[in-house]
Amino acid sequence: MNKIIECVPNFSEGCNLEKIERIVNVFRAKENVKLLDYSNDKDHNRMVVTVIGDPEAIKKTLIEAVGVAIEIIDLTKHKGQHPRLGAADVIPFIPIKGISIEEADALAKEVGKTLAEKYSLPVYFYEKSASSAYRRNLSAIRKGEFEGLAEKMKQSEWKPDLGPEKPHPTAGASVIGARMPLIAFNVNLNTTRFEIADTIAKNIRFIGGGLRYCKAIGVDLKSQNLMQVSMNLTDYTKTSIYQAVEMIRFEAQRYGVSIAGCELVGMVPLQALIDTASYYLGLEGFSTNRVLETHWME
Amino acid sequence: MNKIIECVPNFSEGCNLEKIERIVNVFRAKENVKLLDYSNDKDHNRMVVTVIGDPEAIKKTLIEAVGVAIEIIDLTKHKGQHPRLGAADVIPFIPIKGISIEEADALAKEVGKTLAEKYSLPVYFYEKSASSAYRRNLSAIRKGEFEGLAEKMKQSEWKPDLGPEKPHPTAGASVIGARMPLIAFNVNLNTTRFEIADTIAKNIRFIGGGLRYCKAIGVDLKSQNLMQVSMNLTDYTKTSIYQAVEMIRFEAQRYGVSIAGCELVGMVPLQALIDTASYYLGLEGFSTNRVLETHWME
Repeated sequence: MNKIIECVPNFSEGCNLEKIERIVNVFRAKENVKLLDYSNDKDHNRMVVTVIGDPEAIKKTLIEAVGVAIEIIDLTKHKGQHPRLGAADVIPFIPIKGISIEEADALAKEVGKTLAEKYSLPVYFYEKSASSAYRRNLSAIRKGEFEGLAEKMKQSEWKPDLGPEKPHPTAGASVIGARMPLIAFNVNLNTTRFEIADTIAKNIRFIGGGLRYCKAIGVDLKSQNLMQVSMNLTDYTKTSIYQAVEMIRFEAQRYGVSIAGCELVGMVPLQALIDTASYYLGLEGFSTNRVLETHWME
Repeated sequence: MNKIIECVPNFSEGCNLEKIERIVNVFRAKENVKLLDYSNDKDHNRMVVTVIGDPEAIKKTLIEAVGVAIEIIDLTKHKGQHPRLGAADVIPFIPIKGISIEEADALAKEVGKTLAEKYSLPVYFYEKSASSAYRRNLSAIRKGEFEGLAEKMKQSEWKPDLGPEKPHPTAGASVIGARMPLIAFNVNLNTTRFEIADTIAKNIRFIGGGLRYCKAIGVDLKSQNLMQVSMNLTDYTKTSIYQAVEMIRFEAQRYGVSIAGCELVGMVPLQALIDTASYYLGLEGFSTNRVLETHWME
């Protein structure tokens, strides 16, 4: 396997276990596709599937799964706390190994084209695949949700990128695009003052003038008597874990607060770990092919 | 591939490229065996092969390769700067993934048994496979080399562990055993005073009262105007990279010397990188299965 891509499709079904299994089953026992995880949430009435694999195999499997979702999910009867636009609501493609963000974008475009043609499904491209800057952000596209979609599509700036210019009657529309792997990363602070975590989060995040690919909020960890800066690093190749940590460390110092520890949530690309070790050890030019186990990944 | 073992056999041929290729060819195009590297040295007249793979496949391939080495290497005509005892001089087995040091030891014993029987080859077990403490160290077993082996074997404490009690006429004997992966690791110091690197090396290494699984020497990096502490960590699961680095850092501080950078030489197990990142970020319970790419290693 030379190229590995990750796909994390979000489906608008989080309650009916039979329907959930029908969708998830599509990802099972497929050559060159590995189902890493799926989790459904009843309150959100939504399921998130995580698969990695060969780009062509992922593409084929994903198209099949969306077909099943369109068949069994009816948005006109769907209720849930999480905003949603369609049955196969969001479909991000994430380059993992031996594949560039441009290639992931090309794959997203191919998938979008097939879904639009095969299922008469309106498709919006977002993130790195967006056709305009104002479409990069998922929440902008999804604003108004399924219920407001027919009206929204009548506005020229919200015509879909591909497919019919009205919602699929039961499956709405899908938002598809390439994005970098997201690293969910928390830093715990030895303080019980929430405003310290909150201020630091605001200082280090992009919208506050901080690191470009960093989103951050302060969180009160009541159970542990600690405060947390909870982050998403949206492009770890440009904004590194160590940059976020060291920036939090020097911001916290002004309050006399130290770092109690960090948490990496979910899956992390190997390169992000290598970047971390390289910074703290002062390594130069250490790369993934120096990790013994990677020689089984080829 | 659930279990991965590494084998780094050393063969006593470093000049004749035809012979070298005949041995190396055995490791090519074998199911579940991956040839990572081989390098020959003319002065040493010796070749080191690095392969990883499924334990059973590695065992079979190794036995075949030793057969070829015995056929084409004649120690009675061998000259080289590096000490050697046999045609297939040393054969270490190193657990990499999903395999314990005890299982690697069992594999080494099986290989030794087969080599002794199939090729009438005397076999010594060393490192974790040693039958007595005084046989753990390779240099003790190899002392006297091929030329002194017949005499040495007459001493009751140097009878081989398996096989005939006299050397194979042209292939001598083989030293086989399981050991932990060795991490070759250097720390460069911002000083031109060799005695600082030398003293620190002596303080941090096992024989000087330092870290149990650390060997270290001071090295003069003349070309860079730096001094180096050059280390082998012989069991990184017990003596960690970060322990060596931080110990060197606090030793160097007494001379007002800082660390210029570090070098990891050769291949490194993923767990060693995770241990490093976990220490510097203060992570708890982060494990290899949280690294995305590992899901292709299974």
